[in-house]
Amino acid sequence: MISDLLLTNDARVIFLILDGLGDIPNPQFSYLTPLEKAKKPNIDNLALERGVLGRIIPVDIGITPGSGPGHLSLFGYDPTVYEIGRGVLEVLGLNMDLQDGDLAARANFCTVRDGVVIDRRAGRIETKETERLCALISQAIPEIEGVKLIIRPGKSHRFAIIFRGGHLSDKLTDADPHKDNRPVAYSSPKSAEAEFSSILTNTFIKKVQELLKDEKVANGVLLRGFSVKPDIPTFTTRYKMNALAIATYPMYRGIAKVLGMDVKEEPKDYDEMVKILKNNYDDYQFFFMHIKETDTAGEDGNFPAKVDAIERADRIVSAIYDMKPDVLVITGDHSTPCPLKGHSWHPVPLMVVTRTGERDGMVFHEKNCVSGSIGTIYSKQLMSLALAHGFRLDKYGA
Amino acid sequence: MISDLLLTNDARVIFLILDGLGDIPNPQFSYLTPLEKAKKPNIDNLALERGVLGRIIPVDIGITPGSGPGHLSLFGYDPTVYEIGRGVLEVLGLNMDLQDGDLAARANFCTVRDGVVIDRRAGRIETKETERLCALISQAIPEIEGVKLIIRPGKSHRFAIIFRGGHLSDKLTDADPHKDNRPVAYSSPKSAEAEFSSILTNTFIKKVQELLKDEKVANGVLLRGFSVKPDIPTFTTRYKMNALAIATYPMYRGIAKVLGMDVKEEPKDYDEMVKILKNNYDDYQFFFMHIKETDTAGEDGNFPAKVDAIERADRIVSAIYDMKPDVLVITGDHSTPCPLKGHSWHPVPLMVVTRTGERDGMVFHEKNCVSGSIGTIYSKQLMSLALAHGFRLDKYGA
Repeated sequence: MISDLLLTNDARVIFLILDGLGDIPNPQFSYLTPLEKAKKPNIDNLALERGVLGRIIPVDIGITPGSGPGHLSLFGYDPTVYEIGRGVLEVLGLNMDLQDGDLAARANFCTVRDGVVIDRRAGRIETKETERLCALISQAIPEIEGVKLIIRPGKSHRFAIIFRGGHLSDKLTDADPHKDNRPVAYSSPKSAEAEFSSILTNTFIKKVQELLKDEKVANGVLLRGFSVKPDIPTFTTRYKMNALAIATYPMYRGIAKVLGMDVKEEPKDYDEMVKILKNNYDDYQFFFMHIKETDTAGEDGNFPAKVDAIERADRIVSAIYDMKPDVLVITGDHSTPCPLKGHSWHPVPLMVVTRTGERDGMVFHEKNCVSGSIGTIYSKQLMSLALAHGFRLDKYGA
Repeated sequence: MISDLLLTNDARVIFLILDGLGDIPNPQFSYLTPLEKAKKPNIDNLALERGVLGRIIPVDIGITPGSGPGHLSLFGYDPTVYEIGRGVLEVLGLNMDLQDGDLAARANFCTVRDGVVIDRRAGRIETKETERLCALISQAIPEIEGVKLIIRPGKSHRFAIIFRGGHLSDKLTDADPHKDNRPVAYSSPKSAEAEFSSILTNTFIKKVQELLKDEKVANGVLLRGFSVKPDIPTFTTRYKMNALAIATYPMYRGIAKVLGMDVKEEPKDYDEMVKILKNNYDDYQFFFMHIKETDTAGEDGNFPAKVDAIERADRIVSAIYDMKPDVLVITGDHSTPCPLKGHSWHPVPLMVVTRTGERDGMVFHEKNCVSGSIGTIYSKQLMSLALAHGFRLDKYGA
């Protein structure tokens, strides 16, 4: 529906995404949430003066989203229709450059004995070991049948790989036995178009086994999450806004790139994020600013760290709002409650700073968001609401 | 689903629609909304004694509806499936009688020089000028190729036209250059069935140009929003209730007629509306009462006028409720917040007066409606709720 109603104007829309923002009352901290506990004068003053509150459901009731669906839905893409594959997310997270036609995969070093995978994680070897082995492989196997291999080490036994050359298919089963003490697994094509990709990836696995045959621990490799850059209409096509992503973590810049957003720089900290916003404010209508530390603290179950991350984010909010955006949205891609130490299904607190003075008159936290005037909506509906607040949507029908 | 569950009984259902009722906290009036500010003892007593509150979303989150979709959805018609065209709404608004097969269009007088439209609004000529020119055209061009022309002047440079004769098609492009200083535009058929309609409408445009060639300002005409009466199942078919529309403004009587509701009289004021309700109370099960002034005040950004319109509506509420309807619904077709001076996407406050004494115990305004027991629903779901309160829906399943 929206595509027929889009207007263009000078409105600036900023999404400040605090990853994993939502939380639940914490029995160890007087049943407060980090958002309730945090001292966040800038956010709360905005909330009181011109904030309307609500909640967003990333995918559906009871569904815990990964980072891919969490962000796709924030930007108005139905996460049950569009998908960013695991291999793609992995290479994006390692700041690798993903191109059209590339085949991406997550990879593990593993321990193989007599054709059996006896340890899928190769004793969780140290990162520097993985770095050494990746360098070895890169040098020895730069390409296979004209397809270039790009390998980057991750943490512990993990690495990621891109196969580049022509339009490869990701219609492949995992080359992973998924349990220890099973035979080495190879990929199989799920459709005819993937036959070459299957031969290619299996050749790689065999070449690595040959290359590492004298290694004591990490002498094999598993590949999984084969995926190509998804075919997704770009953000600019969808909303007639040029979009800039500003994120310290590679994965989120990568997701933004998949949606066709621009990424100009790689900020080291929040202050640099604001600087990038200011420097590019004239050239874009939409800004996606991503803060990771709230999620990390939630994953660690570290309540004080999550409070601290929120307070540090709050310190840049006045500088952001000084740019006078027509719409400032503060929310998360999903909840990561400290008591759960992981992503969860809980609706995510949402605050929209209005340009009309409309307000709910409440500070920003989970409990107030339940009774906010926006109500509880799906994340994929948020873009329509943001466009409406920016007066970028025409009336529907006469 | 509803069609299989419909029961018939003696229940009377009244929808009192305050057009554009919803509003937002107004910075110039202590952040109140007109509905909060208004003294409305009858509505609020009903609300406190037996009112349940909630909100309705006319089309979707962030979508601002026109009057057509706003009303279609109130009556349970999905506004993304059913559509009332702009031309049809215009002729209804001018109290013209629309028949099956009629082709309706909105029209402007414009200024043409050397085949170029130099002013699409003919200097916004006065209404009486438009009246004179419409009379001239009606007399000179009563019909074209057996198709009767019915013309009625609107305000300023605007008028509306019905082409009547056979089943004409509305699959036509606008005969409107849409910008000044472009050549006179003619309609083109979008499909083969519209070829005759295209010739017909373009012949009309040329005849008018010939007729008005000596006029100094208004010497041409633009036609747009070509539409025919939509093919919509009638309200009575859908809900097994005879319905009467009671509205002071022609457009809303017209929309009701398109849905097959009866319109008996044209009330001049709210008291006459109540009189019509009383006189016809035995003959109908559903009554659509429409009040326009709330929307007009919102469009004007006139907070006190909107408060006044609500207070005046309140004065007839006790007379309406004296009829002992089984269900009285008070809501709007959309929001028209004074600060925005136009329709908006904001959910619309909703109050349903129950027959069981069920109540939320809160007075009726936007903020209470956020936490009302009905919750926030889509307007197209409201009819089911009203039928339920009237015990006109059977149990679903065993």
